[in-house]
Amino acid sequence: MTTDRRTSFRDIKSELERRIARRIWPPGATIPGEEALAAEFGVARATVNRAVQELARSGIVERKRKSGTRVALYPVREARLAIPLVRKEIEAKGAAYAYSRLSRAVVAAPDFLRARLALPDSAKVLHLRCLHLADRTPFQFEERWINLDAVPEARGEAFEEIGPNEWLVENAPFSRAEFAFRAARAGRDEAALLQVVEGEAVFVAERMTWLAGKPITFVRMVHPPGHRMVTEI
Amino acid sequence: MTTDRRTSFRDIKSELERRIARRIWPPGATIPGEEALAAEFGVARATVNRAVQELARSGIVERKRKSGTRVALYPVREARLAIPLVRKEIEAKGAAYAYSRLSRAVVAAPDFLRARLALPDSAKVLHLRCLHLADRTPFQFEERWINLDAVPEARGEAFEEIGPNEWLVENAPFSRAEFAFRAARAGRDEAALLQVVEGEAVFVAERMTWLAGKPITFVRMVHPPGHRMVTEI
Repeated sequence: MTTDRRTSFRDIKSELERRIARRIWPPGATIPGEEALAAEFGVARATVNRAVQELARSGIVERKRKSGTRVALYPVREARLAIPLVRKEIEAKGAAYAYSRLSRAVVAAPDFLRARLALPDSAKVLHLRCLHLADRTPFQFEERWINLDAVPEARGEAFEEIGPNEWLVENAPFSRAEFAFRAARAGRDEAALLQVVEGEAVFVAERMTWLAGKPITFVRMVHPPGHRMVTEI
Repeated sequence: MTTDRRTSFRDIKSELERRIARRIWPPGATIPGEEALAAEFGVARATVNRAVQELARSGIVERKRKSGTRVALYPVREARLAIPLVRKEIEAKGAAYAYSRLSRAVVAAPDFLRARLALPDSAKVLHLRCLHLADRTPFQFEERWINLDAVPEARGEAFEEIGPNEWLVENAPFSRAEFAFRAARAGRDEAALLQVVEGEAVFVAERMTWLAGKPITFVRMVHPPGHRMVTEI
């Protein structure tokens, strides 16, 4: 390391990362204590501490109160997946958002929905089909069911101006959600709506939400080929 | 609320959730202070505090130091996505895991890979093709490239007994990763390996990792129809 200028905690952090990358300190190894490192680098112990703290936060090392700091064996095991409003997702791409409600009907909850949301036989739901467009190109076909027992206010909303996702965020927030993502082949209707060839591979995201134990909604969001859901750590 | 038994913080939490669900306290509303709630429910202020803390942790309410506690407008915006080893993912389903290395070769980095990982023209990579099975049924086809400049130890590993994911976790941990998920149609080779019909919709997960700024690996994981990636909040 250079000593021409004052050594910053970032310099220390880079050097520690380099040693871990080069396996000078292999996974599972205990790294020298802060005092030893401070002496080696000729810096204050607080500088070393800050570098080690940042490495610990990113999961590269693990700090144990008694046994010191170890290079992590399984450094990162979780990514955070943002759940954006589709409008914001489209706008974040710099594209113009447009929304179209295709259909709206109050219906008896279909069997699959009653099973999934544990609804009673008599349950009424609002069934909505919507299209979200980015620069006039179909971006997402949304098929949604809202539990009218949990969200009676939805009966009074046409969903012509505002999409159900955005409306629900303001009117029926959730405390629990389940997400599933899968690949499927576009059926005839979906293909027509998404302007793709029938049978093309589409990316399907499904979401169920609850508030205070009550099922709120189930939604299926279908995206045309080329759609990628991305995240990073 | 019942007063037959001692009121627990869970009772308070349920009641607060109910009021939020029923929009007695709508999104954005400031809820009564802890002292007022403690008086209303006839419990210690610490009991209310614990209930409110749990609601805040789940994102249903937001605590502001000066303005008190508000019902959240956008209650949950992120899910945590577990990134398990494929072996653990299969074992968690109660299925027997099996692994098969299909091919292994040191090659010049292909163009797409050099572009994605910003590798120099001369870069050598280890190209691996593997199959992961659950109860003898193909679960994931893995195609992977390992940057030999960053992980020279991979040259010495046959990957016949241990999958590259598991080996890398122990030998080249990452500090940064990018993930992408998409739907695709199975090509002829993939379809044969996964024992599905060519052109079927497959779920593709891609991952790139870095340690200390150095690209480690790029992997494409292809799953047969029916595969679902799930998470919850």
